Amino acid sequence: MAKARRHFTVPGEFPMYRGGSLLQPTIAYETWGELDDARSNAVLIFTGMSPSAHAASSVLDPTPGWWEEIVGPGLPIDTRRYFVICVNSLGSCFGSTGPASIDPRTGQIYRLTFPVLSLEDVARGGYELLRHLGIERLRALVGPSMGGMTSLAFELMFPGLSEGLLLMSTGSRALPFSIALRSLQREMIRRDPNFNDGNYTRGSMPLTGMRLARKLGMITYRSAEEWRVRFGRERVSASLEPMNGDSFGIVFEVESYLEHHANKFTGQFDPNCYLYLSRASDLFDVADHGGTVMAGLKRIEARRSMIIGVKTDFLFPIDQQRELAEGLSGRGREVEFVELSSLQGHDSFLVDMDSYRPLIAKFFE
Amino acid sequence: MAKARRHFTVPGEFPMYRGGSLLQPTIAYETWGELDDARSNAVLIFTGMSPSAHAASSVLDPTPGWWEEIVGPGLPIDTRRYFVICVNSLGSCFGSTGPASIDPRTGQIYRLTFPVLSLEDVARGGYELLRHLGIERLRALVGPSMGGMTSLAFELMFPGLSEGLLLMSTGSRALPFSIALRSLQREMIRRDPNFNDGNYTRGSMPLTGMRLARKLGMITYRSAEEWRVRFGRERVSASLEPMNGDSFGIVFEVESYLEHHANKFTGQFDPNCYLYLSRASDLFDVADHGGTVMAGLKRIEARRSMIIGVKTDFLFPIDQQRELAEGLSGRGREVEFVELSSLQGHDSFLVDMDSYRPLIAKFFE
Repeated sequence: MAKARRHFTVPGEFPMYRGGSLLQPTIAYETWGELDDARSNAVLIFTGMSPSAHAASSVLDPTPGWWEEIVGPGLPIDTRRYFVICVNSLGSCFGSTGPASIDPRTGQIYRLTFPVLSLEDVARGGYELLRHLGIERLRALVGPSMGGMTSLAFELMFPGLSEGLLLMSTGSRALPFSIALRSLQREMIRRDPNFNDGNYTRGSMPLTGMRLARKLGMITYRSAEEWRVRFGRERVSASLEPMNGDSFGIVFEVESYLEHHANKFTGQFDPNCYLYLSRASDLFDVADHGGTVMAGLKRIEARRSMIIGVKTDFLFPIDQQRELAEGLSGRGREVEFVELSSLQGHDSFLVDMDSYRPLIAKFFE
Repeated sequence: MAKARRHFTVPGEFPMYRGGSLLQPTIAYETWGELDDARSNAVLIFTGMSPSAHAASSVLDPTPGWWEEIVGPGLPIDTRRYFVICVNSLGSCFGSTGPASIDPRTGQIYRLTFPVLSLEDVARGGYELLRHLGIERLRALVGPSMGGMTSLAFELMFPGLSEGLLLMSTGSRALPFSIALRSLQREMIRRDPNFNDGNYTRGSMPLTGMRLARKLGMITYRSAEEWRVRFGRERVSASLEPMNGDSFGIVFEVESYLEHHANKFTGQFDPNCYLYLSRASDLFDVADHGGTVMAGLKRIEARRSMIIGVKTDFLFPIDQQRELAEGLSGRGREVEFVELSSLQGHDSFLVDMDSYRPLIAKFFE
């Protein structure tokens, strides 16, 4: 896996958007395809909160990526035509510097001494990488979910650098409902006795808090409609007798599904990194870059945009997609707004490939 | 407070719907108004999951009840005309027998030895109380939220006993989305180290788990729209500096609101009772009483029904209200279905009194 992942160390000091700095942070990334001679065919992808830079498989790493059906030769983001870069967000734990990394100034793991993380910092990490790669123009910037907000930050901080902008399941800012959910997820982790103010050890991780947070995540990433169709009231067990002495164990299929996904996730993601990225999502606000959301969006110079939203998305409701499309349009800009009826809620861009494949292909034609 | 609350002890053994029995359980209740000579003016209210029987103030207990603007002299459920009874659900902890009560067979607190609780048991508790009070006919049965499902159970078990049926923010069964949310709330409590398999002590209650569960409750009881209007992205503090050493403390108004409500709730409600009532809500299914939901609903004999639902309700979506109205109609029955646009989601029946007052008054005219 490590063979496909590359690392770039930003030289010197990296100033953080909300204060403080990092010394020589690393940005992990993967690339697919070839940069053309004019250095004009690059596409940059910012990810959602939890994925790594491994968007798709390659010769160096044949394991399937998180967007395996979208990025590749002959696929919607065609790596025969484009040089595709996916970065692991600064603050994450899949190769990029984050709270789980060692602070070179102290020789200790950052943990909660990591400065406040903003999506503007994640965006700047991507920008520094482009400079390092000698790329001065992007054919397109692509961002689903948190990656969409990071893309907006990028556009606001480095205007005119990208010709196209493809956003999906994202928004100009977090709404209080999403803030409440993420705040509760953070609290679940922080209240786990093993969290120990961020000083957990490998032998005693706040796994319970992480599991609970992941389950709440799954509940908000999908939709009530999907589960009604998929699980209904199907039972794992007809009996309600306590199993293994547990009176309130799993009875319904939907409970078993959540359990399965929580077990898969936990252990992969560093809890402190989760807290920082989660809070960064709450803090982001296009209005910080222009006084109001609309004024901020008007400053974005991408010539062509596509905004894809899903009606069943709880975290970034469809109204927020419409707002983005409205704010980005005008001034001779080409903006396409697509409203999908996918059942899979916020996660649709990872699951409902039949809907997304043709849309993304059209954007890149 | 205890002056208004009355207690009735069911004589002998009380068989539980899903097996086991209780010995001489107590049903706590309050009443308002006078039973007329024909014993024909009684109205029975089953509550949502967490309230006590104290729906409204009275001379004996002047503290405001949870439906203070609905139940009283000259109010929509007019206590000058009706003899109004509100029961504390069996399994709860406000006077009725539940997991926090002493099992007379052992002299010990039931805790998790309490048999599986079903809303059918809660309904039977209400029925036994009516028999005790010498009431053979109800003018109306009223149930919001979990109380609505309890009312449906009552109608299915004791058909023809009530002339009218007023349901709000409820459904014929729990959907997997609601089950997932409640399952996660239960897990938060059960994973609190102080839970200790239900054997917590007064000095070390699973308060963290209860606080988290209550916060998730608040998130699902209200609506994203309400919070957008009420809180927006207002901050409690402009600074993101760690406060009292807490790097991820409260920053946004919505976080402060949840904190306030969690603190108010915790300590009032017994954690084991919470688990039992929560699971009982998941288990209820009208289809258990007729093969399918529609067949079950057709068995209900109430002559006049009103179903009130709210479009912003997450827990019992508006489709479920429509399903109830459809299932209850026909056969010369009078059914009114009201779809409200209240902003306050599932909790609207407790908050949006301007919408509910005239509707409930109309039903009781």
